Amino acid sequence: MITLYHSPRSRSTSVLSLLRLMGKETEVKVQTIQVKRRGGLGDSDPRNPHPEGKVPVLEVDGRMIRERAAIMLWLTDHFDSALGRGISSPVRGDYLSWLFYYGNVMEPLMYLSFLEVTDNPMVNEWCRDNAAMYAALEVALSGHDFLVDDQISAADILVASPFTWIPDMVPDSEPIRNWLSRCEAAQDMAWLAEVENAGLRELGLADEQESA
Amino acid sequence: MITLYHSPRSRSTSVLSLLRLMGKETEVKVQTIQVKRRGGLGDSDPRNPHPEGKVPVLEVDGRMIRERAAIMLWLTDHFDSALGRGISSPVRGDYLSWLFYYGNVMEPLMYLSFLEVTDNPMVNEWCRDNAAMYAALEVALSGHDFLVDDQISAADILVASPFTWIPDMVPDSEPIRNWLSRCEAAQDMAWLAEVENAGLRELGLADEQESA
Ligand SMILES: N[C@@H](CCC(=O)N[C@@H](CS)C(=O)NCC(=O)O)C(=O)O
Ligand SMILES: N[C@@H](CCC(=O)N[C@@H](CS)C(=O)NCC(=O)O)C(=O)O
Repeated sequence: MITLYHSPRSRSTSVLSLLRLMGKETEVKVQTIQVKRRGGLGDSDPRNPHPEGKVPVLEVDGRMIRERAAIMLWLTDHFDSALGRGISSPVRGDYLSWLFYYGNVMEPLMYLSFLEVTDNPMVNEWCRDNAAMYAALEVALSGHDFLVDDQISAADILVASPFTWIPDMVPDSEPIRNWLSRCEAAQDMAWLAEVENAGLRELGLADEQESA
Repeated sequence: MITLYHSPRSRSTSVLSLLRLMGKETEVKVQTIQVKRRGGLGDSDPRNPHPEGKVPVLEVDGRMIRERAAIMLWLTDHFDSALGRGISSPVRGDYLSWLFYYGNVMEPLMYLSFLEVTDNPMVNEWCRDNAAMYAALEVALSGHDFLVDDQISAADILVASPFTWIPDMVPDSEPIRNWLSRCEAAQDMAWLAEVENAGLRELGLADEQESA
């Protein structure tokens, strides 16, 4: 038995989108819960098994998997899905590199810009800068339509997600903008909006709820 | 053909240590290269295929795998090693969670403390704080000798590495200190020191070279 603990308009939304593309949205139970949101709205949920009250968490036979990229990788491997790249795939390494690059480089760049700590040698040593990140995306996208190859993978869903969340992060780069459009077109956004709105109503939150 | 691009006393050192524990230190070619180091010493190396001049990078049949945790995961899966936890292992999820937790939470906490940005609601939202990180380690270690179970895995080598690198980060916690001692005892530190010193000499660097 697999349960995804999910809160609408949060990092768990992309896991939901992945499950839909994998065709596994009914094989995994989705438990909608509250999390603390920006602007003081919402609160942690007593039903949330995450040790820090965050989402997503995936429960598998009573064990908890935390960290969004870990959950996406576990799911694509477990279901041997075309949204993943299996252990014997020649592009397995690219798939893993992007899954780890997201949290090692992109989230720090994102939060450091919120924190207005950017032009700093220590930051540069740690995760370089947006220019290097955009260059990494462009190099990958010069060779194929999606990050790993010509088919969308969970890595695209993960890496594209902050750009949807923070449109200011979208650079003035045609290859990146085109890739973001392809990522959006490949996901079932109508289904996702419906499920997200149902989740918000279930939690008594307004449709215009800010993301967590 | 698999090549590890390595620089002594850097993040790639733990990949070397993993290879030794896996018994694969001769099956993977280790190419010693320069990287920029703190204090202005060293420079990026023209032989380094990493797009940002960093280590580690793993080259597999001409393709590059970047991000240390991605490399460790790829290696343990590829060689189906006891230092990993395979896809059908019941603790695969724990193994993945720790590999991603390291970069998603521990490296940010480490760098934010260097940057003296800590007591901040945005940081707390992003990666909580050292207390929550120590608590996560202690919860895992209350159930078994290593993070995933009673045997050392690549996740222990990765997660323990910053504590070796920055002894100030070691908390006043018996379970964590004991685990760090077990991690050290389980690795072949004498072999590692020898290989690292040979690497430093090869690069013309002094034995007391600061870590990268
Ligand atoms: N590193 C974690 C971050 C998870 C996270 O921060 N989730 C947010 C939602 S987008 C959350 O649950 N926030 C609630 C809180 O901080 O209490 C991951 O990748 O899964
Ligand atoms: N997120 C990367 C970080 C790699 C990294 O920063 N490596 C350092 C050595 S510890 C480096 O190569 N520094 C040289 C530089 O910044 O030019 C990973 O996990 O592999």
